[in-house]
Amino acid sequence: MTSKLLQDVVGELSKLPGIGRRTALRLAMHLLRMEPESVSDMTRSIDRFRTDIKYCRLCNNLSDEEICPICADRERDHSTICIVEQVADVLSIENTRQYKGLYHVLGGVISPMQGISPSDLKIDLLLDRIAQGGIREVILAISTSVEGETTLFYLMNRLKRFEGLKITSIARGIGFGDELEYVDELTITQALRNRREIE
Amino acid sequence: MTSKLLQDVVGELSKLPGIGRRTALRLAMHLLRMEPESVSDMTRSIDRFRTDIKYCRLCNNLSDEEICPICADRERDHSTICIVEQVADVLSIENTRQYKGLYHVLGGVISPMQGISPSDLKIDLLLDRIAQGGIREVILAISTSVEGETTLFYLMNRLKRFEGLKITSIARGIGFGDELEYVDELTITQALRNRREIE
Repeated sequence: MTSKLLQDVVGELSKLPGIGRRTALRLAMHLLRMEPESVSDMTRSIDRFRTDIKYCRLCNNLSDEEICPICADRERDHSTICIVEQVADVLSIENTRQYKGLYHVLGGVISPMQGISPSDLKIDLLLDRIAQGGIREVILAISTSVEGETTLFYLMNRLKRFEGLKITSIARGIGFGDELEYVDELTITQALRNRREIE
Repeated sequence: MTSKLLQDVVGELSKLPGIGRRTALRLAMHLLRMEPESVSDMTRSIDRFRTDIKYCRLCNNLSDEEICPICADRERDHSTICIVEQVADVLSIENTRQYKGLYHVLGGVISPMQGISPSDLKIDLLLDRIAQGGIREVILAISTSVEGETTLFYLMNRLKRFEGLKITSIARGIGFGDELEYVDELTITQALRNRREIE
């Protein structure tokens, strides 16, 4: 490249996931069309995010404070915890505006292939939370991958010692807009098994 | 979102082309897995690039100096100029290591639809360069889009006043690895017309 500055920025951007050298170059060209102030606003927000972000010490969700706004919200149902893999899942569920309980972010799923063991996930934190009492139901909202199923099985085993705790899982079925033709057999099997009478 | 820091970084990243909110969120999560120093290296390279980059005052290529390393290279053939749309095109041609002349980066193509007129491109700079003498050939390496053809036609018109200047265009044909079945008719027509005897 004829410019070391360009070479550096392309090199740095292409370290990001899903961004190859060609995309990095396109992004660099876009940066030149942006106002210098907009670019520095962007880099400042990245730096601040990386330096100042915290993990809620109750639910492990991303937070600006020690305790996230969801855990701190007295209006929410503190007797229900929805267990999810990652922060993005909290956002997806929150977007529905249908769930009023709390969350617990595991921070991944058990994956021997990727070297992620139960101790790498925030499972002990979850068990401590439940042990302190007041939790009536935990909803498992884990993906149906092999790793997800392993994690589900592991969690069920650890959770069954809490007497009277209701353990539920989000329903598996055909999504809205999915065409049956393209849905996998396992999902169809589950959807048939969990069929409901039309009222 | 439960974190303003996260909301800010996702908002800023999703302003970039080809990056939606979902991708921005995935990138933000990746930033958390990176070392803080790697993140600040990246943001610093972006800031420096935006602030310090220059355009070569001869060929309009990106450069760290007033004159880019290609224009400054006395070993190269200063009598030939290859005219390209954008910086990425220079990199593509340089990667072949086959071309030893100079470049001229137009900075786009004429596009009435996008409000890009000839005066928005570095055409006058090019004509000044040629007017100063010493240029024997200009190679037009412009894309074959409608806008590209318009630009080509416009350039031909402006260049014909230079007597004795050889004007060439890169060859149109079937690319290596392209399957004839999927190549458009215009390209096949050109490829047939420009057929060469096998020696």
